[in-house]
Amino acid sequence: MARNKHPEETVNRILSVSFRLFMEKGYEHTSIQDIINQLGGLSKGAIYHHFKSKEDILLAVTDRMTAESNQLLTVIRDCPDLNGKEKLKTIFKESISRRVQNDIFTVAPDFHNNPKLLFSLLHDTVDNVAPDYILPIIRQGISDGSIETDYPEQLAELILLAANVWMNPMIFDSTEEESHRKFMVFSQMMQGFGLDIIDDEMLERLLELTAIYQKSK
Amino acid sequence: MARNKHPEETVNRILSVSFRLFMEKGYEHTSIQDIINQLGGLSKGAIYHHFKSKEDILLAVTDRMTAESNQLLTVIRDCPDLNGKEKLKTIFKESISRRVQNDIFTVAPDFHNNPKLLFSLLHDTVDNVAPDYILPIIRQGISDGSIETDYPEQLAELILLAANVWMNPMIFDSTEEESHRKFMVFSQMMQGFGLDIIDDEMLERLLELTAIYQKSK
Repeated sequence: MARNKHPEETVNRILSVSFRLFMEKGYEHTSIQDIINQLGGLSKGAIYHHFKSKEDILLAVTDRMTAESNQLLTVIRDCPDLNGKEKLKTIFKESISRRVQNDIFTVAPDFHNNPKLLFSLLHDTVDNVAPDYILPIIRQGISDGSIETDYPEQLAELILLAANVWMNPMIFDSTEEESHRKFMVFSQMMQGFGLDIIDDEMLERLLELTAIYQKSK
Repeated sequence: MARNKHPEETVNRILSVSFRLFMEKGYEHTSIQDIINQLGGLSKGAIYHHFKSKEDILLAVTDRMTAESNQLLTVIRDCPDLNGKEKLKTIFKESISRRVQNDIFTVAPDFHNNPKLLFSLLHDTVDNVAPDYILPIIRQGISDGSIETDYPEQLAELILLAANVWMNPMIFDSTEEESHRKFMVFSQMMQGFGLDIIDDEMLERLLELTAIYQKSK
């Protein structure tokens, strides 16, 4: 076999094709063979050189999405014109607004049958996103007076777990009605922490995503 | 092979021995052979007749614990002398007080390397414990005036996820200091929902369990 001179390019092609197929056919209904068929000329061996399994490809696809999402979080975190509370609001608003969320909710990976994916999302949320993005924003809020808490690390974790895991209709299968009710309780929890940052526009967008997911699964 | 006339008894013996070994040696360091060695006379085939794997045994062991825990929840839920808010407080207090919790935290299954176990705990919490035990108590609280919410199902879920998953030092490895800080944020969240049911005695017990876990792992 000829040595591949551009392994990164190959990986990128595999991930782009896989993402599109996962969207079109759903993850469960996409086979490694389907992916190969769309990669004209690439052998099965070449795929398995880079990825151990279909699940491995899915993890890389989600990693790439995470990287894009973290880019957005970085811009908001480091924005010089907002106070802490405003940044927190902007993060929620922008995170759900992203156009790519429609694609993610259309791919609709079945977390119900995928403990590893849920596990990695859960730990990414608590071990990476909370300390790297939400915590510095809460700390800024404490120092600029817009957020009040003695426990910034723990508040960051709890808010993110509720938002990213509990309110995620892909993890806990929710109807639009249930999503609405979760959102109201989440909003009440945030108010209890003095964080009145949830508005109707966010609610509408969340319901839209829930509907996309319900339709696609 | 002679047909086993008492399969239930055999299963019980396997689970009791396994639970003890998981406690003494830790789950990771217990082999199927260790379990067999303690079951004098039982063949490897007999174990594999009932359980597919060591993980399968662990799931059965935790199921048995869940059954015991549910018994306690049932007694409190159906107790005629308490209002809804008092029942909620009693459930938290009694759940962490149970002597068997020391054993569970000593066994200290490593959730970090066990996505399936975490997955099953997460879904058991949201799909069973919340609707079967916490929801009826919140509903009672609404009707007796001790709890106020328009979203009893979602409040039950969020409270339990925070308590059973986020505050569980076996899932999100916490030092005593971190456990303490999580507890304070949890208590603040509960107060935000009008539920001032967390007291210092509970905090002390939680720190005790965290210390047991930290020492055992």
